[in-house]
Amino acid sequence: MKISARNVLAGKVQNITKGAVNAEVTLALQNGETVVAIITNSSVDSLGLVHGGAAFAIVKASDVMIGKGLDGHKLSARNVLASKIVKLQDGAVNSEVVVRMTGGTEVVASITKESVKSLGLKIGDDVFAVVKASHVMIGA
Amino acid sequence: MKISARNVLAGKVQNITKGAVNAEVTLALQNGETVVAIITNSSVDSLGLVHGGAAFAIVKASDVMIGKGLDGHKLSARNVLASKIVKLQDGAVNSEVVVRMTGGTEVVASITKESVKSLGLKIGDDVFAVVKASHVMIGA
Amino acid sequence: MKISARNVLAGKVQNITKGAVNAEVTLALQNGETVVAIITNSSVDSLGLVHGGAAFAIVKASDVMIGKGLDGHKLSARNVLASKIVKLQDGAVNSEVVVRMTGGTEVVASITKESVKSLGLKIGDDVFAVVKASHVMIGA
Repeated sequence: MKISARNVLAGKVQNITKGAVNAEVTLALQNGETVVAIITNSSVDSLGLVHGGAAFAIVKASDVMIGKGLDGHKLSARNVLASKIVKLQDGAVNSEVVVRMTGGTEVVASITKESVKSLGLKIGDDVFAVVKASHVMIGA
Repeated sequence: MKISARNVLAGKVQNITKGAVNAEVTLALQNGETVVAIITNSSVDSLGLVHGGAAFAIVKASDVMIGKGLDGHKLSARNVLASKIVKLQDGAVNSEVVVRMTGGTEVVASITKESVKSLGLKIGDDVFAVVKASHVMIGA
Repeated sequence: MKISARNVLAGKVQNITKGAVNAEVTLALQNGETVVAIITNSSVDSLGLVHGGAAFAIVKASDVMIGKGLDGHKLSARNVLASKIVKLQDGAVNSEVVVRMTGGTEVVASITKESVKSLGLKIGDDVFAVVKASHVMIGA
């Protein structure tokens, strides 16, 4: 499978909670992190997702935010992943930030250049990769 | 109506499934494709959506992914639309990819230039436009 | 808290409607606007959101659309905020549009340069900032 989403993270299904229309799926990644996705019930069925089954969490770079100093704060985003910046590339308006999570998995974020500046982001910084569960797709 | 979302696709409501907070709305586009959206129940009511009624599926270019060789794979994204690349335009960090679905409808995707490169995308390629249902708005 | 999302809007919780998996949270911003977010039930609990409590609506610039002449139309997006364009900055592919809502709060949108052109956007224009509820995070 080739997909333009920059983040395709392999893992195993750890939990599935079905609602009326949507379901919450938790994936345990290979390096120990967990990722939560909100997908439709129909997708849980059509993908045949079961506890322990192999699956991918797929996230577009533009759906990843970078946070700093979030320790005392709380976010509704279900995915707040402790990371370190390993690469920074500026464009005209947007920048690409690559972070490595504590478990070693890399995640690419596309944020505005203005945010890189206002957060003073630089390689080596301890940050958080923040992703809303509804922005995570599941592949199988 | 003028909206910055690059994809405003005319269709008719084919199905509505209401949940506790969210609803799943399926639209049949004019050229035969179907698009699934997750919107709130309140929006179904305030838009007065009914089976057979005219409506628009509205999707930001940045919410469209491009997939290749997805045949053997499954994605939780409810919208995986067989398409052909008809236009490619590179920016500094992001690229714009225009695809034409088999029914003829064009869809614009904004993906990173790195993805265009790593997937080896070029005009004429058979690809899939992939959109999560929760990223589709409905206009009426 | 420092986060790359360009829009961090302070407000108070006005309403919470829980579903099976997701919840709808309405925030009253300081300048009078209201913003609706869809987050998971777990997040409502872990953030300890209560009626009247202080909270932030957090939205990535890339999740904000700009609409014009929407008056006769209806959108499923729960956040359609009357605004005026105060700043425009073009990149190679994307542009940054800053709008000021009637209450005074500024919102940053990242849209394609092509949309700026096709909508004929310019400083001083009356527009709407459009954001799907599922794209709004809540911080506390």
